Amino acid sequence: MGVLVVGTVTLDTVETPSKRVEDVLGGSGVYASVAASFFKEPVQLIGVIGADFPYTYTDFLKVQGIDLQGLKRVDDGKSFRWGGRYAEDFNVRDTLFTELNVVSDFDPILPDAYKETPYIFLANNSPALQLSIIEQATDPKLIVCDTMDFWINEEREALDALLARVDVLILNDSEAQLFTGDSNLMRAAQAILRYGPKRVIVKKGEHGAFSVTESSFFSAPAYPLTQVTDPTGAGDSFAGGMMGYIASVRDMSEETIRSAMIYGTVVASFNIEDFSVNRQKCVEFSEISSRYGELQKAVRF
Amino acid sequence: MGVLVVGTVTLDTVETPSKRVEDVLGGSGVYASVAASFFKEPVQLIGVIGADFPYTYTDFLKVQGIDLQGLKRVDDGKSFRWGGRYAEDFNVRDTLFTELNVVSDFDPILPDAYKETPYIFLANNSPALQLSIIEQATDPKLIVCDTMDFWINEEREALDALLARVDVLILNDSEAQLFTGDSNLMRAAQAILRYGPKRVIVKKGEHGAFSVTESSFFSAPAYPLTQVTDPTGAGDSFAGGMMGYIASVRDMSEETIRSAMIYGTVVASFNIEDFSVNRQKCVEFSEISSRYGELQKAVRF
Repeated sequence: MGVLVVGTVTLDTVETPSKRVEDVLGGSGVYASVAASFFKEPVQLIGVIGADFPYTYTDFLKVQGIDLQGLKRVDDGKSFRWGGRYAEDFNVRDTLFTELNVVSDFDPILPDAYKETPYIFLANNSPALQLSIIEQATDPKLIVCDTMDFWINEEREALDALLARVDVLILNDSEAQLFTGDSNLMRAAQAILRYGPKRVIVKKGEHGAFSVTESSFFSAPAYPLTQVTDPTGAGDSFAGGMMGYIASVRDMSEETIRSAMIYGTVVASFNIEDFSVNRQKCVEFSEISSRYGELQKAVRF
Repeated sequence: MGVLVVGTVTLDTVETPSKRVEDVLGGSGVYASVAASFFKEPVQLIGVIGADFPYTYTDFLKVQGIDLQGLKRVDDGKSFRWGGRYAEDFNVRDTLFTELNVVSDFDPILPDAYKETPYIFLANNSPALQLSIIEQATDPKLIVCDTMDFWINEEREALDALLARVDVLILNDSEAQLFTGDSNLMRAAQAILRYGPKRVIVKKGEHGAFSVTESSFFSAPAYPLTQVTDPTGAGDSFAGGMMGYIASVRDMSEETIRSAMIYGTVVASFNIEDFSVNRQKCVEFSEISSRYGELQKAVRF
């Protein structure tokens, strides 16, 4: 079994009110695959990097057990670089720069070993690229995809076509509102279901997340963190943790998806505690289980 | 047993993108006491109205079973009037006018029959007025109080003194941040505990609410409404529903408070479905129980 993650692998520069870090390991593919790796199933990462990408970073991913056969290194290219700055309350983020570099003409080809991978997470990317992965997969059991405002505004037709092919769409509250033009999140999520996904998961940052299907509603709490250092990658950690758990139990029942969303929440909570994937480097599974148990107690009534 | 509610009884003008209503029944005392009345315990309301206050409104409160012995009618005065306008997404509200009228020099005296009432809700008011009620109560079992940005900014010293005397403080997320100067809500709530309340409940509107004590954390979901008509009074309905339930089970355990917060959430969800207390006029208790059950299912994992 296992999880296939398709996303970016980047060098990030992040500024918060207390600190600035430069060219640290980042990208949706990194956050999601590292999150998925905690659940002991094979994790495969599809992405592209340039010649400048530090081997210490790829070595870390390998140590984490992530299969990098699908991570292409372009010898005469430069890596994707992204810079962002957070305001005091971490809810506002300004993008300082986006240098696509090798990503701009990346056309991913699935290695044969990846084609039958059943659990697929398509991190935010152009709908065309996301669709091309779906078309190469031969035996997908669950296709989960993310998107963002840029694609909703610029590639709406391709995105609509993509949605007819995915099982689960994950997106932010503001993106759900943008996609539907409806400020009521519940109504927005229900409207997106009509485009094809069997489930829509709306991420609300510090307010948790919720999931809707035709017949179910699940409200997932956020983990109550008192120390936020860097929220970059929280959404992708959430999705990756979810996928890792689903792959480990090989089941897609409502019950499993709910537990998976909570595991995703927990892994994302660790991610936020430090820059890049620094906190994940030293997270034990017992710590993940412990926070899962805390959230169980936190919602019980 | 029973619940004592101290709050405003007003004539509201509310504008939403789809409708405008004028001089409708409103006020924190009304929303809270109507919400509390669903739980079949005696509910007493302390407040003040002018000669212009329609008898149909006070008749409705009586029919709802609310004791109005403590509602003073000032024969040569005008009622408190408030006007507000909501933007499209209902998260932004502009106050159009506030005419305090009879409220400006209201100095409430508890009728003898109210002095021993065990469960006291002090809706948003000047800390001095809230404190005077506490000093008149002879046998309080639970004192819950609300406040707002105005008092945090203008009467901070009196508010600090009040907090040493209350069991539970209920406030909005933005008010918790203003009170502490801390944008992290969890840390803010924990900091407020140090002023005296044994429990702090933070309301987050469409994102639900949470409660912290020295040793517990509870995350309450919002009820997923697809039709919001008028959010005015949601916070007071939440608090009132909570108080009504607590009075009905005569217990203040963590378990009871959690259930009470969910009942408060449910009563508030009905309130939002129509202007004023129009929806509450026809809510059956079976509908409240039904939404309570839906929320139990919505958080289960």
